[in-house]
Amino acid sequence: MYGIVVVSHSKKITDGIVELINEMTHNSVKTISAGGTEDGRLGTSATFIMEQINSCVDCNRILIFCDMGSSILSSETALELLEPEVRKKCIMVDGPIVEGAFVAAVQSMVTDELDEILREVKNI
Amino acid sequence: MYGIVVVSHSKKITDGIVELINEMTHNSVKTISAGGTEDGRLGTSATFIMEQINSCVDCNRILIFCDMGSSILSSETALELLEPEVRKKCIMVDGPIVEGAFVAAVQSMVTDELDEILREVKNI
Repeated sequence: MYGIVVVSHSKKITDGIVELINEMTHNSVKTISAGGTEDGRLGTSATFIMEQINSCVDCNRILIFCDMGSSILSSETALELLEPEVRKKCIMVDGPIVEGAFVAAVQSMVTDELDEILREVKNI
Repeated sequence: MYGIVVVSHSKKITDGIVELINEMTHNSVKTISAGGTEDGRLGTSATFIMEQINSCVDCNRILIFCDMGSSILSSETALELLEPEVRKKCIMVDGPIVEGAFVAAVQSMVTDELDEILREVKNI
């Protein structure tokens, strides 16, 4: 099972992505909002992202989508903070946050093959 | 002056993009949320998008960013509903909604040249 974690400066953006994916996949893909700071302001937090990634620990693979700038840097720091057995499940995906997370979620319902999912994201 | 209109099924996503751009550009780029239905549910509405585009009528150019599916179709319909003098200001931009709108907003503070702005979006 795949987990998807979305990271932006804006909690609204990542909450919206989760809402959209849940609607389109009928809640069948675990998608987690890790945007904004712990208290919902604009910004990013490596510890908050780490905690959100840890909530996907039951997934075999965890795909992380970031928009830009410190979303990416904080996610990289979050990866370093994770326990190694969680970290090795994580893949930072190079793709647009909204379109990429959506396509990955839909594709993960069709196949378990990581390469196929990443190929679909690449083709956006 | 450029206006930016963002269109998604999710109002949260487009409100978040506006919030992010306003913060990063100190409210100096007119950015309009046209996500969701008129009453904020998941979906898109051509008439709502049209109205939101019309609120940028004071801009010389209006850049429209959509995420996928019916966001694009409804935006195309919205363009057809516009008065010709507004429609000719509009450009549907081929780029990721969050990253593209953000880069376009920032770049529009640096240059008035449409080609330069679109080139930066293409380079994301």
